Formats: sequence, structure tokens, C-alpha cells
Amino acid sequence: MKVKVAINGYGTIGKRVADAVSKQDDMEVIGVTKTKPDFEAKMAIRKGYKLYCAIPENLELFESAGIRVEGTVDDLINKADIVVDCSPGKVGAQNKPMYEKAGVKAIFQGGEKKDVAELSFNALANYEKAVGKNYVRVVSCNTTGLVRVLYLLDTNFGIEKVRAVMIRRVVDPKEDKKGLVNGIMPDPVKLPSHHGPDVQTVLPHIDITTVAFKVPTTLMHVHSLNVQLKEKASEDDVIDVFEKEPRILLVSKDDGFTSTAKIIEWARELRIRYDLFENVVWRDSIAVVGNELYLTQAIHQEAIVVPENIDAIRAMLEMADKEESIRKTNESLDIGKFQI
Amino acid sequence: MKVKVAINGYGTIGKRVADAVSKQDDMEVIGVTKTKPDFEAKMAIRKGYKLYCAIPENLELFESAGIRVEGTVDDLINKADIVVDCSPGKVGAQNKPMYEKAGVKAIFQGGEKKDVAELSFNALANYEKAVGKNYVRVVSCNTTGLVRVLYLLDTNFGIEKVRAVMIRRVVDPKEDKKGLVNGIMPDPVKLPSHHGPDVQTVLPHIDITTVAFKVPTTLMHVHSLNVQLKEKASEDDVIDVFEKEPRILLVSKDDGFTSTAKIIEWARELRIRYDLFENVVWRDSIAVVGNELYLTQAIHQEAIVVPENIDAIRAMLEMADKEESIRKTNESLDIGKFQI
Repeated sequence: MKVKVAINGYGTIGKRVADAVSKQDDMEVIGVTKTKPDFEAKMAIRKGYKLYCAIPENLELFESAGIRVEGTVDDLINKADIVVDCSPGKVGAQNKPMYEKAGVKAIFQGGEKKDVAELSFNALANYEKAVGKNYVRVVSCNTTGLVRVLYLLDTNFGIEKVRAVMIRRVVDPKEDKKGLVNGIMPDPVKLPSHHGPDVQTVLPHIDITTVAFKVPTTLMHVHSLNVQLKEKASEDDVIDVFEKEPRILLVSKDDGFTSTAKIIEWARELRIRYDLFENVVWRDSIAVVGNELYLTQAIHQEAIVVPENIDAIRAMLEMADKEESIRKTNESLDIGKFQI
Repeated sequence: MKVKVAINGYGTIGKRVADAVSKQDDMEVIGVTKTKPDFEAKMAIRKGYKLYCAIPENLELFESAGIRVEGTVDDLINKADIVVDCSPGKVGAQNKPMYEKAGVKAIFQGGEKKDVAELSFNALANYEKAVGKNYVRVVSCNTTGLVRVLYLLDTNFGIEKVRAVMIRRVVDPKEDKKGLVNGIMPDPVKLPSHHGPDVQTVLPHIDITTVAFKVPTTLMHVHSLNVQLKEKASEDDVIDVFEKEPRILLVSKDDGFTSTAKIIEWARELRIRYDLFENVVWRDSIAVVGNELYLTQAIHQEAIVVPENIDAIRAMLEMADKEESIRKTNESLDIGKFQI
């Protein structure tokens, strides 16, 4: 008996979560929603997902485009064991009363404020706390990337302090209505960026300050981390820890990975849509100076939260313990199979 | 008995041709070459291709990187029925004496001058002329995109004159050493761009003038075409012709295809590496003004020549006639299956 998952919002995150759910042996996608009958709606149908209209007033648009919908979002969530809300930032909070009324559990994404849910979630860091919860928020791509690495460093060596500089892709590749094509934008100008406080929603005891900039690229975010460790650790000690974690992928300049452009070129062969569910850490960037660790990592903003959504489903519906869920998610998504 | 294909140069074109050859039931990849032991070399091995060193002096580099090579490019081509030369522009011509010495047929890419080969090739336009030939050049991405459309228009309605403006992606996505991030570059400033004369290497009777510009994107080229037709044709007549040709894919703004960004977003779901082997023509851009046809098309520079290379192999080795080869190529690469 598979648990029934509804995907509310079949966009950048929703389409990836839908495909990932479909690859699990203990859950199924019972339907996805779209607001408009565009190529993504047609792709959902092509892939065999049942399509529902996210905005009842737009039903006519689908009809006149000749696209069959099964009903509206209400019809969908009433059949679901859990909803993964993948609507744009802030819309998730607007949707919450609907989930409450239907009495259905819901997962929100990192574009929502933390108080939309009972818990901000990362599978490595706090899977157990999500067990049985009704509303959980999977933290954003940058925060997920930070939390994974910081959790590993903290549990292995202890963390005194973190200073992180985020160099962010300005928009996702499909975006053609906004952007920044010739500049570097401090975002925000005044410290801290929201990422530090957001990390603390998952790892409250970590002392972290983050600064962020947007730059003209769509491919990935890059993080330059400085982590003051409590215990002395060598570069090899850190590499050992990362090599054991499937959700961290170590790459090297010697293999031709001179930029995110090359990482994505490689990923285009590995997974459809060049999805990288792993933190991509440059092995050669790992440097210990005194008691401070430096490292550079790249985060695929469209894909990295996907495994976290799958694990959140299992935790909230009490389908598996942490170790089993992560193992199943990793195996089904080929996480940990691309070490180079 | 499958014909033995060697791929000399496993880069942007080579890796795609290798995968496409592997999908045919009448040919096989007997090996690929790389100059350096980078991630692309490791990917070739991961995919099961036998790797050969393209530059004998670099054998040591592969050894010290722990990458097993089967030998050098000479060893490879001596076992081949045909070589697909996918080395960077101008290097193909340097390689030709090696192929002549080995007595092996060879296909060159559009980065070479036309006199490297006996024939400049496009499957729709002049498959028959390549039958039995020893040296054939598959024309470049932009020229392939132009030739396909012009061949169809010419055979159906007759062409008086063509005026084409090419708006070109500045570099391929993996490129991080050169580019143009903030400008529009007439390339060349003085008319014509090389594309017009290059079209005439395949369709010598077409009166065509081309102008080209580079712009800061990596995703696709876009062509704005003006074609003066001999016979009166309506917009629907043109659409009918395009709808019957699998290598032309019609898309529409109504489906959300507002830019190449959206076309690629869609393609990321369709094929690995988001390869688009088809000309992507905006249906809504097809307009007849007097006896002049206007249309806008997008050309995926990394992928569009791939089916042409497969058809060139069949023609040169006399394995199939035009219709059969194109049918097999299209079927194996899902060309013609993504009409929206």
C-alpha cells in the first residue's frame, strides 16, 4: 500500500519532487496542479500525472487549450495522505488554511517563512523531529546546502563559528522575465543575509554569519565557507567525513571542474534535467589554516531539496526511520553513485 | 554485422554522436578519443566506450591520472570502417592525412573548410550525393538549421531569395574561458556571414544573404528568416509542410514558449543533456507578407548535427537509402515524437 502524495504546483521544484516520488516503492503521485495550461502542464500529462487546476477560476483556460484536468486542487487534496506544496514563495502560506480544512498533512518549501510549519527540516540534521508532524518546511536550497555540510562538521569536529559568503545564481534557467545581466548585487546590502538565521531554524546552536551576492548566472549557487572548528582536524579528516556521506559529492580541478559551467556539463550526462541532488564540494578547496577550515561548494538550486522532500514525507507519515528513509531515497535517486 | 565507428574527439559533438551511434541497430562505437584525462574522459569510460589517447605524447597524463586507455588514435582508426572526426575546428583538416594513410572513410564537422571533404552534407537535402563517398563534411549547426528549412520551402514552393539574420549564442554552456557577457557583436561586421556561402555548399542554387550577431547566451541560436517564395503560399501551407517533417518541431507562445530559456526548460525533460535534434520553429512567427515568408526558429547548437552524422555514416557506407536511413535515425533518437 503506497501513501498518496499530492503535488500542489508543478513548477521547478514540483516537477522534480513528482518524479522523485514516482521512483519510491512506498509512495505514489496521485496528482499535480498547475495554474495555467502551458508546456509544463502538457509535460505533466505526457508523464502520466493526473492534472488538477490550482486556481478554480482558470478551469476554462485549460478547457479552451484542450487540456483535460481531473478537477481542482480541492478535489486533489481530499484524496491525499500528504500534500507537497511547491507553489511560489509566500503562496504556500496562503494555501495552508485549505490543507487545515481538508485535514491533510503538508510540506512547505523554503520560500515560506519558518512559522508556516511546526518544523524547519533537513534529513541529515533533524529527521527524527519531523516524525509524525503535520506541517513541515523543507529549508531553501542554499540553507540545505549549508546545513548538510555544517551538520557533518559539527557532529565530527564541533563548530565554534561559521562565516559564509554565498555567491548566488540570479534566476533559474527557465526565467526570462527578470534577471541581472551585468552586475554584482549585494543581496541584502545590510548583514546578515537570511541564510544564517535560516540555518539556525534547523541547527539552533550554530554561530553563523552569512553574506550573499547575486551574480549573472543561472547554473548554480557557490558558497565560500570559513568554519572555525572546536577540535583540530586535518584536510584529510574533513575529506574522509565528506567521502562517507552520499549527499556530498567531491570533485576536483584536475578532472576539469574549473567552474559551475563544467559541473553542469558533467551533470547533463548523469541525470535528466542535469539535476544534482548532492552538495558539490571542490576537494582541492578544502584547506585548514590554523583552526579554521575553508571550503568551496556548488549547490544546484533547482534540485538539492528534492531528496529532503522525500525524506520529509516518510518522517511525517512515520513510514521509516532516518537511516532507512535516507538509504531508500539515495538509492532510488542514484545519490552517492557518481563519485569521480 | 554492425559497421565499426570510431569517434575522434569526445567533446560537445563527439559525445552526442557516440550515444546516437550506440542507439542504431546497424552500427557500433568501437572507441572514442580524448586529448586529456578530464571528466569527459571518465564519462566515456563510465558509459562503456573504449578510450584512446588522441595525442600520443599525452599517454602519460592518462596513466598518471589512473585512466586506462586502449591505445592511441592510430590504433583506433585502423580498426574502424569509418571515423567521425569531432575534433575542434581546423583540427579535422590536420587529421585528414592520418585517415588517408589508414585508408579509412571520414566524416568532418562544420568547423572545417568545405574543401576538407568531397561533399558538404545535409540528410534532407543531399543524402544521395554522399552515397559511397570517402570524405564528407556535415555542415555546421546554423547551416544545418537553415538548410533543413530552406530545402523544404524550396522543394514545395520554390525560393526566389533568402535574407537571414542569425542571433547566435556566444559560446557553449560548458565554456568558461571565453565569452561575451555584456554586448552584441556583429560577427562579422562586413556582410555576408559565412552561413550564406555555407548553405550554398549544400544548396548551390539558393540566392541567400546572411548577417550574424553574437549575444550573451549559451542556450541556442535564433534565426530570423525572410524568404521570397516563387509560388504563392499561405501560412497554413507552410505549417503543413513543416508538420510533416519530423526534424522540424513547431512550438507556440501560447504554450509558454516565450524564449529559448523556455524551450530548453522543456527540452530538459525530453532528452538527456536537453538535446534538441530538431529545428524549433515558432508556429506563431510564420507570417506571409505579400510573397515574402517570415519565420523565427531556434537551433540547439550542440545537438542539431547529430542525426546528420548518423545519416552520413549510412550513406557513405551504402547501408541504406535516404528514406530508410532517416527513418531509422529519427526513430532511434525519438525525432518527431515531441510535437506539442
